[in-house]
Amino acid sequence: MLKTPAYAVASAKAPLAPYTIERREPGPHDVLIEILYCGVCHSDIHQARDEWGGSIFPMVPGHEIVGRVAQIGREVQKWQVGDTVGVGCFVDSCRQCEACRAGEEQYCERGMSLTYNGYEQDGKTPTYGGYSTRITVDENYVVRIPPGLPLERAAPLLCAGITTYSPLRRFGVTAGSRVAVVGLGGLGHVGVKLAKALGATVTVLSHSPGKRSAALELGADDFVATGDPEAFTAHAGRFDLILDTVSAQHDYNAYLNLLRRDGTMVLVGMPEPAPLSAAPLIVRRRRLTGSLIGGIRELQEMLDFCADHGVVADVEVIPIDKINEAYDRVVRSEVRYRFVIDLASLSGAV
Amino acid sequence: MLKTPAYAVASAKAPLAPYTIERREPGPHDVLIEILYCGVCHSDIHQARDEWGGSIFPMVPGHEIVGRVAQIGREVQKWQVGDTVGVGCFVDSCRQCEACRAGEEQYCERGMSLTYNGYEQDGKTPTYGGYSTRITVDENYVVRIPPGLPLERAAPLLCAGITTYSPLRRFGVTAGSRVAVVGLGGLGHVGVKLAKALGATVTVLSHSPGKRSAALELGADDFVATGDPEAFTAHAGRFDLILDTVSAQHDYNAYLNLLRRDGTMVLVGMPEPAPLSAAPLIVRRRRLTGSLIGGIRELQEMLDFCADHGVVADVEVIPIDKINEAYDRVVRSEVRYRFVIDLASLSGAV
Repeated sequence: MLKTPAYAVASAKAPLAPYTIERREPGPHDVLIEILYCGVCHSDIHQARDEWGGSIFPMVPGHEIVGRVAQIGREVQKWQVGDTVGVGCFVDSCRQCEACRAGEEQYCERGMSLTYNGYEQDGKTPTYGGYSTRITVDENYVVRIPPGLPLERAAPLLCAGITTYSPLRRFGVTAGSRVAVVGLGGLGHVGVKLAKALGATVTVLSHSPGKRSAALELGADDFVATGDPEAFTAHAGRFDLILDTVSAQHDYNAYLNLLRRDGTMVLVGMPEPAPLSAAPLIVRRRRLTGSLIGGIRELQEMLDFCADHGVVADVEVIPIDKINEAYDRVVRSEVRYRFVIDLASLSGAV
Repeated sequence: MLKTPAYAVASAKAPLAPYTIERREPGPHDVLIEILYCGVCHSDIHQARDEWGGSIFPMVPGHEIVGRVAQIGREVQKWQVGDTVGVGCFVDSCRQCEACRAGEEQYCERGMSLTYNGYEQDGKTPTYGGYSTRITVDENYVVRIPPGLPLERAAPLLCAGITTYSPLRRFGVTAGSRVAVVGLGGLGHVGVKLAKALGATVTVLSHSPGKRSAALELGADDFVATGDPEAFTAHAGRFDLILDTVSAQHDYNAYLNLLRRDGTMVLVGMPEPAPLSAAPLIVRRRRLTGSLIGGIRELQEMLDFCADHGVVADVEVIPIDKINEAYDRVVRSEVRYRFVIDLASLSGAV
């Protein structure tokens, strides 16, 4: 086993603190990756604080991992030492169910192995994430970071990028589509850039009127402050697709009425249950759906698309000893738009 | 104007009682239809009792109309005197909006003219429905009843048929699809027959275990009693499409979990708002949508499909003086599955 420096939480109430984990020696199909950067996703905080229940402690969060291949197993075909690679939200899946065979491992019927706060496919070996200096991953669950993408700004694409790219593509966003993005955080800001790169006309919907200039700077064509109740009548029937990135409870019905006939609203946050009326769905045949990250093939497609279109996240790079402060700032929405840990700050800590 | 016998409610608390209305003389593009049968839809009751608000009184309900062309306007191209025709839930629409131009008049952006409890496109002339002996309708809002369909059993297709056919087709039901129908009333029983005729494997979901034999007699392949909480785990991920015909409030989340990845649940009843969780949508990319009757072109397509496949409603024919009793029985779910008024019982009443 490979002793590896990391930051972990010991319990839901504990801060992140230095901790040593063991990574497995690369097996025949594994690659050992030296981690360079790891994004800080809001879901890291939810899980570290056990806000969704069922958290596994000690926990090493982090599923927006960019690094360099340091060693490969003897059967590895896809990767060479020195390759710049990424690891996203999962590191394995059953590989046999209908979803896995369709390349949609995120919907694995037996359950994917989350990159952290999960178990390997043996059902008992806990997984540890990217707040660490290295990780051993099966070669099939690794993606290439295309040349030209600045690595620290590419890291958030591994979760925030795929979470927004997948539904934009799946639900048919193309040149001329009228897209609304609800919420302008880590997910939303990448969603705006991706929807623009796909050729859509993009409107940001936010209850914070102060975010107007930030939205326009990101490339949005329009901004609607949803604190004004008039907004929902003024813009009724306007959008083909609403990408809803908000994870706080909110009124789905009001947003659904902003969709045109046959329009789709996609939830990618995980808000508390809220009352749903049938009428907005029925009277214009609107759809409410959800989307969960993306599969490995689509993850690679998204990274290549971002390289082709110059899409990267806006980030604030931090050393790992600032992580607890960063968590508090994420909760207060005081980051534009993603913290990314520079793992050089952790090297040599063992 | 043409004095015409009808049954009307004078107010939300009043029973249906004989009433005389005036129908317009057929204009150049109108047909005058002698009404033979009219189905009794649960929505007739909701509207007659003003349970949805905004009812217009006096009200002559009825939007499942089958009759014979008695007179045609001088410019009428499509119809001849003696043709057997139907009129569904609307008798006009703006004809200019995107929905109307797409043949989806039911989603008319300026508002369709409902067959009753609505106004003509002038916005002020009230419309009266099929609980009457004749009706004057623009030729473009009339459909042909194909030969071979028993007329009294075809009448409910004009609402119950199209309401279930349209989403089954729209959301891709075909040979081998796994379809669940929730609720076995006027809509549900036709939904089962249509889904079977489309080649699907059909399961009825009902909280009344006593409906099992009725479901199987209608052609369903399976029946699941939803009163048993185990049912929702045992059948998780089973269906491609759930056609939800229930108009009472119920838990959408439990039903959504019965859908497979990318499955669709369609609401065609109009239940009270209920709490919606994001998780069932997100973890399998499931869709919740709604559907509202269908356009004129699709209404004709549905009738032709029913004639080809021998699909008709199961009905109990009544004279119009039994209508108040019939309403009470519909509310108590004591009809298999649709009352249909024989309008011969009203002829000569003026």
